[in-house]
Amino acid sequence: MPKIKKLLVANRGEISLRIMRTAKEMGIKTVAVFSEADRLSPHVKFADEAVCLGPPASSESYLLGEKIIEVCKKLNVDAIHPGYGFLSENAAFAKKVSDAGLIFVGPSPESIEVMGSKLAAKQAVGKYNIPLVPGTEEAISDIPAAKKIASEIGYPILIKASAGGGGKGMRIVENESEFEEQMNRAISEAVSAFGDGAVFIEKYITSPRHIEIQVLGDQLGNVVYLFERECSIQRRHQKVIEEAPSSVVSPEMRKAMGEAAVGVAKACDYYGAGTVEFIVDEGLNFYFLEMNTRLQVEHPVTEMITGKDLVKEQILIAEGNPLSFTQDDLSINGHSIEVRVYAEDPRNNFLPDIGTLETYIRPQGPGIRVDDGFEEGMKIPIYYDPMIAKLVSHAETREAAIYRMIRAIEDYQITGIQTTLGFCKFALQHEAFVSGNFDTKFVDRYFKPEVLDPVFDQEEKEVLAALAVNFFEKLTSKKSQKAESKSEGKSSAWMKRLN
Amino acid sequence: MPKIKKLLVANRGEISLRIMRTAKEMGIKTVAVFSEADRLSPHVKFADEAVCLGPPASSESYLLGEKIIEVCKKLNVDAIHPGYGFLSENAAFAKKVSDAGLIFVGPSPESIEVMGSKLAAKQAVGKYNIPLVPGTEEAISDIPAAKKIASEIGYPILIKASAGGGGKGMRIVENESEFEEQMNRAISEAVSAFGDGAVFIEKYITSPRHIEIQVLGDQLGNVVYLFERECSIQRRHQKVIEEAPSSVVSPEMRKAMGEAAVGVAKACDYYGAGTVEFIVDEGLNFYFLEMNTRLQVEHPVTEMITGKDLVKEQILIAEGNPLSFTQDDLSINGHSIEVRVYAEDPRNNFLPDIGTLETYIRPQGPGIRVDDGFEEGMKIPIYYDPMIAKLVSHAETREAAIYRMIRAIEDYQITGIQTTLGFCKFALQHEAFVSGNFDTKFVDRYFKPEVLDPVFDQEEKEVLAALAVNFFEKLTSKKSQKAESKSEGKSSAWMKRLN
Repeated sequence: MPKIKKLLVANRGEISLRIMRTAKEMGIKTVAVFSEADRLSPHVKFADEAVCLGPPASSESYLLGEKIIEVCKKLNVDAIHPGYGFLSENAAFAKKVSDAGLIFVGPSPESIEVMGSKLAAKQAVGKYNIPLVPGTEEAISDIPAAKKIASEIGYPILIKASAGGGGKGMRIVENESEFEEQMNRAISEAVSAFGDGAVFIEKYITSPRHIEIQVLGDQLGNVVYLFERECSIQRRHQKVIEEAPSSVVSPEMRKAMGEAAVGVAKACDYYGAGTVEFIVDEGLNFYFLEMNTRLQVEHPVTEMITGKDLVKEQILIAEGNPLSFTQDDLSINGHSIEVRVYAEDPRNNFLPDIGTLETYIRPQGPGIRVDDGFEEGMKIPIYYDPMIAKLVSHAETREAAIYRMIRAIEDYQITGIQTTLGFCKFALQHEAFVSGNFDTKFVDRYFKPEVLDPVFDQEEKEVLAALAVNFFEKLTSKKSQKAESKSEGKSSAWMKRLN
Repeated sequence: MPKIKKLLVANRGEISLRIMRTAKEMGIKTVAVFSEADRLSPHVKFADEAVCLGPPASSESYLLGEKIIEVCKKLNVDAIHPGYGFLSENAAFAKKVSDAGLIFVGPSPESIEVMGSKLAAKQAVGKYNIPLVPGTEEAISDIPAAKKIASEIGYPILIKASAGGGGKGMRIVENESEFEEQMNRAISEAVSAFGDGAVFIEKYITSPRHIEIQVLGDQLGNVVYLFERECSIQRRHQKVIEEAPSSVVSPEMRKAMGEAAVGVAKACDYYGAGTVEFIVDEGLNFYFLEMNTRLQVEHPVTEMITGKDLVKEQILIAEGNPLSFTQDDLSINGHSIEVRVYAEDPRNNFLPDIGTLETYIRPQGPGIRVDDGFEEGMKIPIYYDPMIAKLVSHAETREAAIYRMIRAIEDYQITGIQTTLGFCKFALQHEAFVSGNFDTKFVDRYFKPEVLDPVFDQEEKEVLAALAVNFFEKLTSKKSQKAESKSEGKSSAWMKRLN
């Protein structure tokens, strides 16, 4: 069995660091790659060796698969971990890596390819009895036939253009009486937008939750599931808070979803770490959406509740080792939540707010983990995903994990840019989140910028700071040394808040 | 049942912060106290309110029990957590706290008092069948009688002066033929040193391990044990590396030790968190040493393997709540190690090396917890224990926890002072530690300052830095951009090491 001695991480930032930490613990030498924008990044300093790939644009650096393979040959690297994003789900890259005699820490190119196509994925899982969102299997343009199918599925239903994407040509039909009109409109929209009037019909899930199952498979065909992650809190259709386990998944549902996920993995001869995504409706019926054939951003919550190091397992599997545990060895220990700290302004529709981390002090303490790739004083580059950090809490119960997370959010000191921390705190304290009664529409339904603490401009800050100092000076002139020191602490905390 | 609404932590540094973090997560307001030396400490900033107690010396600040109680009255505090050290095992203070109508987060004054006296503790546990180091129960001066007892116990034996302490008047006797002569000498030494020739005789444990059991008891008389901590790696008779579980404790031995510890707790009607310390001999026989009636420095390793927040449990118990779990609910999850980062120079007999934290960058990543009370740029005050931080690793196995800890030690960047990190890394890599075959004499037996990386003086540093820069410049002039960036990373890492 090949032992990996030197690993190149074809990624950047927090996930590059996170992978290299485990590699180091396994006695594996590490090679980082970086673009010119990331020259001073912690992941570059952490690695045993680091190589610049080129200019900041991903297409000229992190996406240069062939250049990365060349680097491996020059530096005697024997394996590549792609992280997430960039080349991680590029079947052609995975194939080139193995053709070059290197180990790709991930699934086979064939698995990536099958799961990369929604249609191929659906066909592959066909014989495994995996629940899919009810709907037409093929495109349809015959209105009476479509109407019949729609009433079989049950309203509301969704009509979507076969050639479409990103919501274009999509229509929700609430009841049968509207069907014909809406289908006609959908077809004519599809024709004018894509030159193709064919549409799909599927069940519309009014209150969807996004719940995914982590799987691990070895190269001998053993596959286990590491339970679910609840990822329904999203903004701009992207996850921002994840947790494990989900508050709506019962042990029976967990087993059913887990076994379905293992079926999906087996359907594409999967090995490595993968995630099977499901959409869950109000009745807690779950339907297969897609499989992500890589390590997921939110993998830490699964690590916290299972005690498994998923990157270590990925590397062991890539070396050809059989899984060292069975399904029965796995159990859930406590509850874990992750909030993603993005350089975004929740007051401005979560648009990126790029700048310099003027202050950057991480929270600490029991049950808190911070995975990040920045240090105080660094600029968040505009070229990549604006995620600064993943803040993870772990505690005995969901309630304790929420309180711990809120405490950690309050301890996290970031100035210089707007972040999603304030939004996450709002969400964690919201009744819908606390009760577990939420879906992917949480942000649309409950969030308004006004719920966040006010932000002051420079002039307002100066006035407020002067007022605060004045106030505390008055206080301290009246009181003893005790009061003085007390107010000092308060005053500086207050000044901090104003920044 | 009284709900604690505002808690004063009568302590400083890491343990004050650690306690307040949990309090905050429980919705309890926090009050910090501080001496003039700690005015800028993180624990002062973290608290909702903070009060200066006085000058740096503990006797004029952290030990001023009455002043602390006064502060509580003024600020409407309803409970005091004493942390460890300072007033934590002061029965008179605990009594004053409760006489003032405040809750003391700890055991009753009576429990503290009994366990604070070795003799009273031994008498109290008498009827609970707790194993004690074999020896005379009372002082003896009759040589033939003593000799008879010694041969019953079995050699080697230890003769120690009844009035002695700190090793004075102690003699090890290897076999019967030496006994009379050694006892005579011990008696005459004891007479000349203490004016009292009475001595105790007890079994001498050649290769002792220090293993302790964490217990939790509620005010209704329920007591559980949270398994053991192995604390044998010590320097200057103080712990420096602790782990849970111990590599020599079998499930049967764990149960026996745990039940003995519960017996000790019941013998003094104990409630709260406490630690029962045992000495373990080469044959893995264990003997009760003493009980610490407070939270222990090394409590995090128990938190990591049990998932329990011991401070939270302390607070719940102090409020009068029954334990929310039974012995059967507890199990061991993985392995955890703590190394204590002291501002000490292992090259100079571990003497304190006080100064400023010029660089202070904490390690991060999965399974790593840092409990500390300092920030970069702060001075370590000379007035208190020189512990900077507790670095804790948690992983699935002991081997993985060791590798994780070594990785974290290498990531920990501290300049400005010498620390115990290098020594801890040496110990964790030593065959005796790795195999689990060590005792409290580890440092004497294996450690020599030469095993550590060299330290350079300022002139040497400058010469080496110049050489290094020169070397890397030569390298980079020959190679491509790739090599340049690679060497840049290495060069800066090297420069860092020199600092």
